[in-house]
This record gives sequence, structure tokens and C-alpha cells, in this order.
Amino acid sequence: MKATLAEAFNQTSYRLSGHTPRNLEVLKQALNQVDGERASDLYGNGEIIEGFQHKMAGFLGKEAAVFFPSGTMAQQIALRIWADEKQVKRVAYHPLSHLEIHEEDGLKELHHLETILLADENRVIELEDVTGLDKEIACLLLELPQREIGGRLPSYETLEAISDYCRKQGIRLHLDGARLLEILPYYGKSAAEIGALFDSVYISMYKGLGGVAGAILAGERSFTEKSKVWKRRHGGDLISLYPYILSADYYFEKHKDKMDQYYQDAVQLAEQLNRCPYISTLPEVPVSNMFHVYIAKGKGVVEPVLASVYEETGVGITSYIKEKYDQACYFEVSIGDWYHAIPKTSLEKTLTLLKERLR
Amino acid sequence: MKATLAEAFNQTSYRLSGHTPRNLEVLKQALNQVDGERASDLYGNGEIIEGFQHKMAGFLGKEAAVFFPSGTMAQQIALRIWADEKQVKRVAYHPLSHLEIHEEDGLKELHHLETILLADENRVIELEDVTGLDKEIACLLLELPQREIGGRLPSYETLEAISDYCRKQGIRLHLDGARLLEILPYYGKSAAEIGALFDSVYISMYKGLGGVAGAILAGERSFTEKSKVWKRRHGGDLISLYPYILSADYYFEKHKDKMDQYYQDAVQLAEQLNRCPYISTLPEVPVSNMFHVYIAKGKGVVEPVLASVYEETGVGITSYIKEKYDQACYFEVSIGDWYHAIPKTSLEKTLTLLKERLR
Repeated sequence: MKATLAEAFNQTSYRLSGHTPRNLEVLKQALNQVDGERASDLYGNGEIIEGFQHKMAGFLGKEAAVFFPSGTMAQQIALRIWADEKQVKRVAYHPLSHLEIHEEDGLKELHHLETILLADENRVIELEDVTGLDKEIACLLLELPQREIGGRLPSYETLEAISDYCRKQGIRLHLDGARLLEILPYYGKSAAEIGALFDSVYISMYKGLGGVAGAILAGERSFTEKSKVWKRRHGGDLISLYPYILSADYYFEKHKDKMDQYYQDAVQLAEQLNRCPYISTLPEVPVSNMFHVYIAKGKGVVEPVLASVYEETGVGITSYIKEKYDQACYFEVSIGDWYHAIPKTSLEKTLTLLKERLR
Repeated sequence: MKATLAEAFNQTSYRLSGHTPRNLEVLKQALNQVDGERASDLYGNGEIIEGFQHKMAGFLGKEAAVFFPSGTMAQQIALRIWADEKQVKRVAYHPLSHLEIHEEDGLKELHHLETILLADENRVIELEDVTGLDKEIACLLLELPQREIGGRLPSYETLEAISDYCRKQGIRLHLDGARLLEILPYYGKSAAEIGALFDSVYISMYKGLGGVAGAILAGERSFTEKSKVWKRRHGGDLISLYPYILSADYYFEKHKDKMDQYYQDAVQLAEQLNRCPYISTLPEVPVSNMFHVYIAKGKGVVEPVLASVYEETGVGITSYIKEKYDQACYFEVSIGDWYHAIPKTSLEKTLTLLKERLR
């Protein structure tokens, strides 16, 4: 019996995406060096949480930061605070925003905010989308990079122009920077420089950085203090968040300075994949460590091809593929430490076999 | 310079309450024996979370259970589900319920539920409070034991009568069983027997049990499946909850069968404390491992007395005291493993010194 794609993937020794397997070793490694006598954080207080929040506020160029169990919680709360401030229960973001498609409508069900969807599924939000708004909004959320369309970015000039316009119009600008670090090499800017364009900034501590879970929300202290009240209301002010904080700090230090390498790797790999028949990447030239891979064939054809390549090379490209349009499918690649562990010959063989078998 | 109460407490080797210090060792110990190759849970799926949920559903005698990062999140969601089911946005609970005093009004701010407060700050909810309701409610929440009044309980017959009445009236009954295991010895019942009186049950995995954080919400599958949707909306459906799940399981196994010992210890200790001048416990005879200790003197008098006792005996009674009424203060005692580590002579000396110095 032929292995399914996921089964074949699970047998591979090397992976195109990520840093390591998502297993318990991720936490164990982060805890190895910590002193067991160190006191737990306690409902948002204590050296572990306050120290890390202070460090991340500095990194993001903001006055203060708050550690949250999840970005879902952090971002709903950011938008709610800005909506309350302006007494306008309306915000705007991209139609493929995490809040719109991955959160069971928490923003609407819990915070009763109305959303305006800007741009469309084929492009990022541009200045004209914002200046063309015909209803008043409290806040605009920009996701950088826009993950669900392959991880794309507006130009830096566009960012500056949107930021400038929002400030003049009294529209708060929030950064969904789940993968903020991953785009710093492309823009050639620091996190604080990009953060300065926004009123509030969220980053994920696990997506590109490789922690266990958790998020940081940063802004002025008057904003972050309000966010702590909402964090308690959401049930996120846990007695102890240290398992996530310690691992966030550990993997932040381990991976933060490698983003340029991941980005360059992504550009090179995308170039090679684009040479395979039926394969095209989105974007064609990545602007971060991530991109989407489209294959212009049906899922039923692609899955056994990929599984056979995994079995022969030991390199796992993806554990899943999603159907899109007619007779096409895609998956996401997100380069981390693991990519460098793949033997050069195994990677070459993977690409060669893909070329041969997708004909 | 004299040490403050908290400083003197932090210098002690033994503590009246709890299992161990709340330090990182709590997590490290729970992880010692786990296999690093074991896969993480992934957004509510995977063997680690599903296995533990199944185990806790069985323990609580319910069809299904869901692991939540916090009880705050779990209980708001339970009440919301019952309110939606009946299309009645009103629930009832005790005026000192966790939801009323510790959650920044999350239930009202996020779920827009109206609350009716039953009984008062001096007693638990009785059948007459429920039968006397003059407005329709979707759900009644009972907290067992009622922590903020010293951890008190209604009689088991009252519980049965309330459960019976609610079923007949179409009122859902939810158990705030944060410390459910701690009351099983007093009632002489299993968790499943008590759980059978309720439509939904929450238990904390850290309060009496000693885990790092986390909670279980149990009920029929149709209820728990809805709770998973709300968990995602709240931002509680983390990519990985295993640090809390593994420690919950570890300390559940370690402490669940010692509750009778903790309860007996609490009864004995309360009896001894009640022999000290100016001291009285609430309840006078504990019904679980916890009780409150009232001292009929001002905080300014009591704090230096306690600090001096800690310094001489090495036994920490409490890290804080709260003022209540005029010239009175109180603190909570919650017996766990730590109590048994106190040398008998040190405990005796502590009680002797308290008697001498509180004159």
C-alpha cells in the first residue's frame, strides 16, 4: 500500500521548512539552562515576564510590551482598544487577515467590531485602498508579510505613506507582525524603524522564531496597560506564562540574527523551484523566508509524486497540499534552521526528481 | 531594620500552604521523564491533549472534556454556551464568585451576560435562593468550595435538591470546581458522582493540584465541541498547550489521592489555631484542605508578630494579610504537600509563639 503524503513526510529525515520537529524537545532544550530556583511569574508580575516584556519593548522601539498566550488574543484586544478610544466600532484589514479567516470571528462575536476588507485576495493593501475608504474607521491593521498570499509586502514608501495618512486622519495603525523579523532583511530596516510607523505592534514568538507559543503586543504604556485588563477578561492573564516566555526568549536569541540567511535561502530555493515544470512560486521572488508553491496539476496527481520523492531522497517538502482553482494546488514553504541541515546532494536530487516526475 | 512580612516569609524553609515553591522546578520536574521525541499537540489536536482530555472526562464522569489555558476562559465560555442555548442572557452565581471579583468583568464586557447575585458574603447559596429567583436564568453557577468565604460548602442534600430543581426548571447547572478534588473527602463522593449533578464542570489544574496553569471544562460532547469554537475566539486555542497539559497530568497523579490527608491536616491545624487568642478560622471546622484565618487585631500589630515568628521558627504561615472590618485582618491557608515537611517541633513552636505574642 502506498504511503499517504503525510505518512511519507513523517518518515523523512530532512525538512524544507521550520527549525526542528515540533516536539517536546523544543521546550526541554529551552529549559535546560534555566535555574529551577527561579521564581515563576505571577499573573503578569515578576522578573521573568517583566524582564522579557521590557526587552521586547526595546527591540520594537515601543514604550512598553505585554506577553500574551496568543496573537489571536493580542490582536483582537489591540483593535478593541483603538475602537473604544475613538468610539468607532469599525476597523479595516485585508480579506485574508488572520482575524478574518482563522479566529472563528472572535473579533465580531466578542468585541462586536465591524470590519472593512481592503484590497483583494490577489494583492496587498496599497495607499489608495486606505485613502479611498468611504466610512470612518478606528484602526487599520496591516499584516507584514501578508501570509495567505505567499508572504508579500507593500513597498516601504507605501508603508510610510499609509502611516503618514493614518496619522493625519486620526486612524490608528496596527501591525500584524506575526513574522516581522522575517521581513527586516528585505526592507533593510530594524524592527524599531518599522514599529515607529505603527501605533501598536504584535509579533508571534513561535511562527518564524520557533518558540512553543505566545505573542508580544507593544505600544505606548497607556495602550499596553489597557491591554492587560482585556488580557484578564479574555482569560489570558495566567498565573504562570513562563513556559512560553522562557522558550520565546531562548529561540528569539537563537534565531533573530539568522533572518537574512533564511531570506536568501528562500530566494534561491524559489528560483530553483520555478525551473520545474508546472511549478511557480508566489511571490516569484520571495521578500522574506516564506513563499507559496503552486503546482498546476490536480492534488490526486501531485500527492503520490511528492510522496515518492520523499521516499527516495529523505527530504520532506510539505506535509499537506491544498487544492486551489481547477486542477491546481499549493503549499507553504517557510525557511528556518532545518533547511541548512539538508545535504546538498539530497536537495539537488529532490529538485531533479520533481522536474522528472511532474511532466 | 525589621523585615516586612513578605521578606520574612521568603526567608522561611517551611510553609503552611501549597506543595512546593512556585518556581521553574515545578515544570522541570514534570518534564524530566517525558520523551523529547513526543510530538506537540497542535491547535487542540494530537495525542497529548486528546489523551488527557479523555482521561479527565472519565474522571469527571462526563462524555468529553476540553483543556483550557485558564478557568477564567473556560467558565465564561460555559455560561455563554448555556445562555445562547436558552436565548436568555442572564445567569446567577454567588456575589464573591471568581467571575464577579477577579476577571475584570469579562463575562459582562465580552459576553454581555447579566448576572444575578445569590446569597451574600456570609454564606453559601441554598435551595431557597434558587427557588426564590424572580427572573428567568439560563444557568446557575455553584462554586464548591466557596473560596472567598473560607472554602465553605452546602450540604450534599442541598446540592442534590438544587440540581433536581434546576433540571425541572430547565436551568443549566455549572460547577466551578476549581478545587473540586479537595472537597471529595468531606462529601465522601467521587468526582463523577458530584459531576453527575451538573451539566458542565470546570476544574483547575493548578490551584489545589499543583500544576503550572490550565483548566478542564467537561460536559456532553455537543457542549464541549461548542466550547472549542469559543476557545479559539478567546485566543485560547494555542498551537501548543503541552507545557500545561504535561504538568497538569503529572501533578494530578501526584496529588489526587492525598486530598483526604490534606483535609484532615486542615481540620487539625484549624483546631489548634482556634486555641490562640484573637484567632478564629472560617469555617471553624474546615470542609476541605483550605480555610481562612481571622485575627482580631490591626494589620500593623499582626505583621511584625508574624514576621518575628517566621524568623524564630523558619515556618512561613502566610506572605500577606488582608485588612477586614475594623481592627481585624485575615489570610488563607491551603494545605498541600509542604505542610508535612514541617518538623513537628517547629510547628509546635510556631503555635506557642503565636499564643504568646498575640496577647
